[in-house]
Amino acid sequence: MSKPLILVTNDDGIVAPGIRALVEIAAQLGEVVVVAPDSPQSGKGHAITIHDPLRLKKVKVFPGIEAWECSGTPVDCVKLAKHVVLKERTIDLCVSGINHGSNASINIIYSGTLSAAMEASLENIKSIGFSLDDFSFEADFGPCKPWVRKVMQYALEHPFQSGNLLNVNIPKLPSGQLRGLRLCRQADARWVEKFLEAFDPSGQPYYWLTGEFVNEDHSEDTDVWALQNGYISVVPSMHDLTNYKAMDSLRILEAYESLQKV
Amino acid sequence: MSKPLILVTNDDGIVAPGIRALVEIAAQLGEVVVVAPDSPQSGKGHAITIHDPLRLKKVKVFPGIEAWECSGTPVDCVKLAKHVVLKERTIDLCVSGINHGSNASINIIYSGTLSAAMEASLENIKSIGFSLDDFSFEADFGPCKPWVRKVMQYALEHPFQSGNLLNVNIPKLPSGQLRGLRLCRQADARWVEKFLEAFDPSGQPYYWLTGEFVNEDHSEDTDVWALQNGYISVVPSMHDLTNYKAMDSLRILEAYESLQKV
Repeated sequence: MSKPLILVTNDDGIVAPGIRALVEIAAQLGEVVVVAPDSPQSGKGHAITIHDPLRLKKVKVFPGIEAWECSGTPVDCVKLAKHVVLKERTIDLCVSGINHGSNASINIIYSGTLSAAMEASLENIKSIGFSLDDFSFEADFGPCKPWVRKVMQYALEHPFQSGNLLNVNIPKLPSGQLRGLRLCRQADARWVEKFLEAFDPSGQPYYWLTGEFVNEDHSEDTDVWALQNGYISVVPSMHDLTNYKAMDSLRILEAYESLQKV
Repeated sequence: MSKPLILVTNDDGIVAPGIRALVEIAAQLGEVVVVAPDSPQSGKGHAITIHDPLRLKKVKVFPGIEAWECSGTPVDCVKLAKHVVLKERTIDLCVSGINHGSNASINIIYSGTLSAAMEASLENIKSIGFSLDDFSFEADFGPCKPWVRKVMQYALEHPFQSGNLLNVNIPKLPSGQLRGLRLCRQADARWVEKFLEAFDPSGQPYYWLTGEFVNEDHSEDTDVWALQNGYISVVPSMHDLTNYKAMDSLRILEAYESLQKV
């Protein structure tokens, strides 16, 4: 049987230690092709590049592994991987990360790492975003490696029913203290922004985005709870943003036209 | 009673005709403040600007209306509007658009227009993204204006239960042929990419993203069906990407650690 084909990408850029750790694990499980951004792309969400051309360049970054760096966003990387780099081939699994920093809860919508994984899932590719809850460039990916491998192996061996995408977050803990995998829902947390205002030499103001992650959703079935309690959170995720629960309360809107003439 | 405060933004940029139409309608219903990108930001999804400072400049674009242009993404605009421009004030409604082009179905995750609206909804602000199914810069917003006004008025007059965000798409039709509002779910469609390859003067390749919207979800409860049949689609939307349906089939993953030793 031929080896499974695994596409690896991220948003921290092709030289980040996190993607190196992921490539190392993927290479134990299949044939690996890397297509990743040539510069940090954190916070790029599901951005695509429409108004500019994209560059794609074969690079030697990982010994013995086919790797390409791309000038675009993480989502661009997946699109180029699928349609230009690997055009006729079936991708068995796409893994994105390992992100330097948590992508639990609402971070999924800002994260280039998870958006890349979601883009692959839209292409009917099983897809997993991995993130370690440690923003440091020197983060230690050692303790999480066996768990990342485990989840990838699961994905390669089992069909994913009802959806192709997993958001996996790993707490920053030594090996012995990681308590295992836990299926979760996305916690309903958010960022509270604070902008840092400064002035340029000509006296004009500019602003740096900064903020604080605030979670008031303390339920034990959330990814934030899992991380805080030493578990690796696994959130099955998807691209259907329909708020089905809100449908009934909005039925009046359909009838609204009869209440007021256009 | 004081007038409601309405924040207006978009992704096509502050000089696009679509935002002009939206400002005109909003000004009939409340006090309007505009914070919009200083350049086109289509396809920016939920991108935020982390590694660069943001510029924010008061501009005179709409007679008698407070307006600011921002160097960042649509989501940056909403964050700056809330925390810098309007800091202490309660925003009663955020409207984003009117987008030049449909944001039905999967377009919601690529769209800066809808991501801006979603960002406002995360701030507990009622929020609506409006899009006209016409990509032209010269699109005629006349026929959709009464409907946009209707939905905004509904939003101002009713509490939104179970969620703050609406994705409203309007077909490109003359006034008499618009058949009314229709509550829908997001169609499960996607883009099939085709990259245009070209070569620069030094012989290096570059790629332009292009693609085709493919919908195989023909159910009558979708936004794509509504648009194709002359209705204005209204999809209640949300930021919880948890795939609850996939939970059960993944329970085995939690037990996976016992099957194999780390």
